Amino acid sequence: MTADFTTEPTTAPASDTTAETRQDRFERGMEVLDRVDGESGQRVIDALADINPELGHQVVAWGFGEIYNRPGLSPRDRQLVTLGMLTALGGCEPQLDVHINAALNVGLTRDEIAEALLHTAVYCGMPKAINATFVAKKVFGERGLLKDS
Amino acid sequence: MTADFTTEPTTAPASDTTAETRQDRFERGMEVLDRVDGESGQRVIDALADINPELGHQVVAWGFGEIYNRPGLSPRDRQLVTLGMLTALGGCEPQLDVHINAALNVGLTRDEIAEALLHTAVYCGMPKAINATFVAKKVFGERGLLKDS
Amino acid sequence: MTADFTTEPTTAPASDTTAETRQDRFERGMEVLDRVDGESGQRVIDALADINPELGHQVVAWGFGEIYNRPGLSPRDRQLVTLGMLTALGGCEPQLDVHINAALNVGLTRDEIAEALLHTAVYCGMPKAINATFVAKKVFGERGLLKDS
Amino acid sequence: MTADFTTEPTTAPASDTTAETRQDRFERGMEVLDRVDGESGQRVIDALADINPELGHQVVAWGFGEIYNRPGLSPRDRQLVTLGMLTALGGCEPQLDVHINAALNVGLTRDEIAEALLHTAVYCGMPKAINATFVAKKVFGERGLLKDS
Amino acid sequence: MTADFTTEPTTAPASDTTAETRQDRFERGMEVLDRVDGESGQRVIDALADINPELGHQVVAWGFGEIYNRPGLSPRDRQLVTLGMLTALGGCEPQLDVHINAALNVGLTRDEIAEALLHTAVYCGMPKAINATFVAKKVFGERGLLKDS
Amino acid sequence: MTADFTTEPTTAPASDTTAETRQDRFERGMEVLDRVDGESGQRVIDALADINPELGHQVVAWGFGEIYNRPGLSPRDRQLVTLGMLTALGGCEPQLDVHINAALNVGLTRDEIAEALLHTAVYCGMPKAINATFVAKKVFGERGLLKDS
Repeated sequence: MTADFTTEPTTAPASDTTAETRQDRFERGMEVLDRVDGESGQRVIDALADINPELGHQVVAWGFGEIYNRPGLSPRDRQLVTLGMLTALGGCEPQLDVHINAALNVGLTRDEIAEALLHTAVYCGMPKAINATFVAKKVFGERGLLKDS
Repeated sequence: MTADFTTEPTTAPASDTTAETRQDRFERGMEVLDRVDGESGQRVIDALADINPELGHQVVAWGFGEIYNRPGLSPRDRQLVTLGMLTALGGCEPQLDVHINAALNVGLTRDEIAEALLHTAVYCGMPKAINATFVAKKVFGERGLLKDS
Repeated sequence: MTADFTTEPTTAPASDTTAETRQDRFERGMEVLDRVDGESGQRVIDALADINPELGHQVVAWGFGEIYNRPGLSPRDRQLVTLGMLTALGGCEPQLDVHINAALNVGLTRDEIAEALLHTAVYCGMPKAINATFVAKKVFGERGLLKDS
Repeated sequence: MTADFTTEPTTAPASDTTAETRQDRFERGMEVLDRVDGESGQRVIDALADINPELGHQVVAWGFGEIYNRPGLSPRDRQLVTLGMLTALGGCEPQLDVHINAALNVGLTRDEIAEALLHTAVYCGMPKAINATFVAKKVFGERGLLKDS
Repeated sequence: MTADFTTEPTTAPASDTTAETRQDRFERGMEVLDRVDGESGQRVIDALADINPELGHQVVAWGFGEIYNRPGLSPRDRQLVTLGMLTALGGCEPQLDVHINAALNVGLTRDEIAEALLHTAVYCGMPKAINATFVAKKVFGERGLLKDS
Repeated sequence: MTADFTTEPTTAPASDTTAETRQDRFERGMEVLDRVDGESGQRVIDALADINPELGHQVVAWGFGEIYNRPGLSPRDRQLVTLGMLTALGGCEPQLDVHINAALNVGLTRDEIAEALLHTAVYCGMPKAINATFVAKKVFGERGLLKDS
């Protein structure tokens, strides 16, 4: 991952005039998914293959290829919005795991992520803020980022 | 399970004029529960017996005996509504397990259930659609219905 | 609207091998949107034009063109799932208005819709079931479908 | 309303051995509804009559006749639980209106209700606590209970 | 724990005129946390220390020191509101564990807690009522309070 | 508002060693509230004065004085998280109104806000993304920021 990526996507977005196949759109999405979510995103797509492959296709081709790939908001900014949403929705611990990893991948620091989750307590209440924070604890532990307490 | 059941319940509903005891209503509900949810529904009722038996009674006597048993919507249609609700609510993985089994019991196919869960992505977003789909993967695996991937 | 449409979409889905522009996909979505949601769907897209036209594009091109248009689940079945989701999510009264209209458009009867909303009380609780039912009352009133009470 | 009612219901609950018709159960529920929710509860039931009368029946016969009427928790305690739930669910402002009235009817004071809604901020976050509090402001205003500010 | 505590907190609240440090406020909160949540609350604060110590500080200093400690609502009443909120939010099983313990600590009986969770079925639906009840089953089991079934 | 403020708060945070009164903390919070939310925040606090003044105090003294004021995350970043949370929670249109104004106040552009709300469709689904976008349409219209459509 390059420093540039943390501010701007580099894959060309779908245009109104260029014709693309489903496969073209899937491939563009996979490039974005790889950069943002890395291995943990790939594992979700693989796990969907024998139960709902079309859902896996749409996560990649639409979610990443059409939306994440747009130039109007940096990947770092998108992860801030995403951390807020996943904390507020509740019950999305598996997705928080993927996206706290993604947040680190696109340039948010450990301390910024912890601060963002503290911020969620004001709007979502303490239980959801705590649940999200314990997912961050697991991810930071796996990546050797936990503070000595 | 008969083919008829997939479109119409056969247990008489409560009437305005016939007097019934709590036990009568519980027994009617158990007949409906057995046909719709099968063993997995029975296990929930059993597990409630030592902590909140009245909640178990009401799930059976009211939920199944009074509502599920009404003739105005087929059991198959009720499970489509139910899959949508449980996916949207979030955090209801145990109930999705019971009702994906129920959906198969009342005539929805493996592919229709997967398609319904894909459809939830439009209204509930990807995380809840994925969470529900992984419950379906578990249930389909237990019933030998997973595709070779 | 034809009787056939209530069970099967007639627009060809995107294929893996045919190349399409964004405009092609938008046009396919508009055909599906027109049949399912009718005028009330069009009004939402129009209202998004000056604030977030890309969101309007994605509702049409992705939601309707890619997902609703798939042959694996009938339009009537999709509306049953959708009524369940929108009731469970809460705060989606504008969308319930559009989709209770849609439900009538694709072949669900007034009584089946009311029964589906009664069914939601078991899973979502009384408040959400009542909120959704009052949206149905507004829609049924506008379409001359209210019972004499 | 008598002081006794604030701690114990006085209507006999359904028994396992006494047979009752649907109408019997509805009438018991109406007695409880009248005492707890008063006129605002009756208006909800009336408004359901031409769209979903069975939902109105079940709110009364089941919600109030079977659950609210049980002796194991006082009406005041039930309203505390209910205020917490309705605030947390979100989008239930019409039901908060009915149940803040109910809370006053069963003996909670204006200040206790405001304190309970302040308490919700810790668990539900500020937005939901504020939304619920503005419903209380409307109800207190209608009943002449607002503080001079 | 004394009987007095079940109706009134005994720690002096923050006043408008007395100056306090962050540490003062944290210490007041810890006194309240200890009485209400006991060991299970302490474990949450400890687990936050190496990932988000400020969140732990705010749970204690603000949630318990500023809100729980206020005299306007008894600890027993606060737990009734809290059980309602945590059940309605969904996905808050870890917090329900802490607060069902807390509910017992401040004077709610086993049967009142089970009745409160039955009551949630009317407003939150059966799935959330059942999920909360199974947390109560775990807590009651750990404290030797389960009925012989 | 100065350009500096869009990246770093300038009010000193509460320290562990400096003693403050409730009034001191309220005043610090009001400085932050004024810069972030402006008039629309002040109106909420005023409206709480005659119903729940302590809730207004805590929004200001805690939410803004203790959390928003921390240096670990810029005001612009906090609004991105906040837009995500308020969209995901649902039923928080009044708060979205305040915070879309706040987002503009702290340096997010009209197009970045629209893009962030498009991004929410992936995680929260179309209905919540559309509901939030219509609040943005109202706010942008009031501030003369709508595109000619």
